[in-house]
Amino acid sequence: MIEPTATNLKAPVSGQFQNDLFLRAALGAATERPPVWLMRQAGRILPQYRALRAGFPDFKVFVKTPDAAAEATIQPVDELGVDAAIIFSDILVIPEAMGLDYEMVEAKGPRFPKVIEHEGDVAGLVSGANAAERLAYVYEALRITKRELAGRVPLIGFAGAPWTILAYMVEGGGSKTFSKARRMLYAEPALAHKLLEKITDSTIEYLKGQVAAGADLLQIFDSWAGELPPAHYRTFAVPCLRRICEALPEVPKTIFAKGAWFALEDLSALPCQVLGLDWNTSPAYARKVMGGGQVLQGNLDPCALYADAASVEAETLAVIRAFNGHHIVNLGHGVYPDTPLESVRTFVDTVKAYRYA
Amino acid sequence: MIEPTATNLKAPVSGQFQNDLFLRAALGAATERPPVWLMRQAGRILPQYRALRAGFPDFKVFVKTPDAAAEATIQPVDELGVDAAIIFSDILVIPEAMGLDYEMVEAKGPRFPKVIEHEGDVAGLVSGANAAERLAYVYEALRITKRELAGRVPLIGFAGAPWTILAYMVEGGGSKTFSKARRMLYAEPALAHKLLEKITDSTIEYLKGQVAAGADLLQIFDSWAGELPPAHYRTFAVPCLRRICEALPEVPKTIFAKGAWFALEDLSALPCQVLGLDWNTSPAYARKVMGGGQVLQGNLDPCALYADAASVEAETLAVIRAFNGHHIVNLGHGVYPDTPLESVRTFVDTVKAYRYA
Repeated sequence: MIEPTATNLKAPVSGQFQNDLFLRAALGAATERPPVWLMRQAGRILPQYRALRAGFPDFKVFVKTPDAAAEATIQPVDELGVDAAIIFSDILVIPEAMGLDYEMVEAKGPRFPKVIEHEGDVAGLVSGANAAERLAYVYEALRITKRELAGRVPLIGFAGAPWTILAYMVEGGGSKTFSKARRMLYAEPALAHKLLEKITDSTIEYLKGQVAAGADLLQIFDSWAGELPPAHYRTFAVPCLRRICEALPEVPKTIFAKGAWFALEDLSALPCQVLGLDWNTSPAYARKVMGGGQVLQGNLDPCALYADAASVEAETLAVIRAFNGHHIVNLGHGVYPDTPLESVRTFVDTVKAYRYA
Repeated sequence: MIEPTATNLKAPVSGQFQNDLFLRAALGAATERPPVWLMRQAGRILPQYRALRAGFPDFKVFVKTPDAAAEATIQPVDELGVDAAIIFSDILVIPEAMGLDYEMVEAKGPRFPKVIEHEGDVAGLVSGANAAERLAYVYEALRITKRELAGRVPLIGFAGAPWTILAYMVEGGGSKTFSKARRMLYAEPALAHKLLEKITDSTIEYLKGQVAAGADLLQIFDSWAGELPPAHYRTFAVPCLRRICEALPEVPKTIFAKGAWFALEDLSALPCQVLGLDWNTSPAYARKVMGGGQVLQGNLDPCALYADAASVEAETLAVIRAFNGHHIVNLGHGVYPDTPLESVRTFVDTVKAYRYA
């Protein structure tokens, strides 16, 4: 068994949680089985969520209604019996709080009517505590969730990584290539650094607010990490992640940098406790290049859940055995909205029935 | 210097080309400088192309007009002085020849009105020589190009890799996740294998036709390789690539599997002479995991060409030095359509002025 990461974190206070498996595993303890949760578990895979959501005119109103966000957060704990809850929200609340509004276009994704192009656009952004104070609705959702969970499982808070947030703010939405955002790193590196600094300042204050409101662990999603060449990821992305990790010593942190296989060595040098892996990246490769002793999270291909129950069970067991401990089971990406609920149940139940030898 | 791949290929006949640098490098010979060309060099970056294309009602009519395709193929040789021409066409001519028609939607990409879902859809596809004979317009474009080039530089033929073609045929177009196509590999693996076999049969006959019409090297584009988990890439994608390579022993072959860093060891075991690298994958990593002695092609980030001339030159030189021989210079992806032509020129000229120590 790999040694837990050196940390000033304490193990969860005995009795604080009815099920503290997720936090114990994140802190590097040997556990009887791996914990399990799913990225995007609070959302469209659950009929309860779809019913709740139908009462709201759009996604953003829903996200900004703390009672509804809390209810959506708890639904998968009730319905699936996962070992952790993750607050229902969106990584794009940060650009919005910084003054860059977005629309969520049904079935298409986010769109920013105005994007960041020039020095003046960056200068005009709100940042740090001034941005974070606009996100009181998220803190309130966390407080309600924490109270309603009543210690059943730990609660995960989250934010987008600064590079990924920059990508949306410059690109104006999703993209096949994110070439406008990547262009800025080559053509205007000083402006990119300035924008990243403002995003990082805001994200740190936002995550402090989440911890104060009850988040037990923080996950940073770097969804577009895989678009950058290794040298740019090291120069533009990793230093922001380091600042975030160092600013939040009181809770364990997970970094999920999708597609950033080439940066795992750098990421493992950060003061975080867990690294998420996408479904391309084997634990054998990850452990070979990692310097740190991080716990790994992942990495079943979300498409594996489209197969029949026997296949879902076999693929899930294969993942558990490939990691063989020091592991939090998850998918290698957010669960796709059209995934059959029965498959998700089989996935979770297979993990929960497993025992390490 | 790495030893050339064992091959039954002959070096280009002396005097057949005025500039045979590209072929000599592809065959593993030591060269005075690396050759250079760009994926998508024949296309929208050139004003000559945009003028030529304006005379046609749509992309597909253009592709099916051999004189026009030949002219577009030669334009970058005239304008940029690249060391190879690549036939102007599209990887989706294969699904169309197999009976699955597509539309090219301006600024959005391809769309298939009908997609492959069931056994019957696969059974109904035309394949092998019957599909390839529908692509006479491509062979004619190659013959015209070959005649007009008159030996100035070698001519590259190409096709999509079977997994990438399956992805379009099942998904019906581009996609953020290709989850429908990936679903088939989990939920209906036998059907996926059957479809891949038909695509591979057709691709082999198509590439034989390209060689007969004058293609001097063949490149296989596996654009969506990076979407697959390593085990699926090994099971579903690599065997098709092996069949293609083995069926075409008479010309050198390049495989560019974007995002397939995890499969480089398998790919290097194939009887091909060149492996393309995307901008995430360093030559140091590639050479460490490769068993074969393939020449490498790539891998400047296309976004590097958005910067100023001094930066383009510096980034280009950094790529040449990182590979340090046994290398064909290219981008790590197709050149983006809005790339400044002057940057492309700086990129090409920087390579052409370079000499290995």
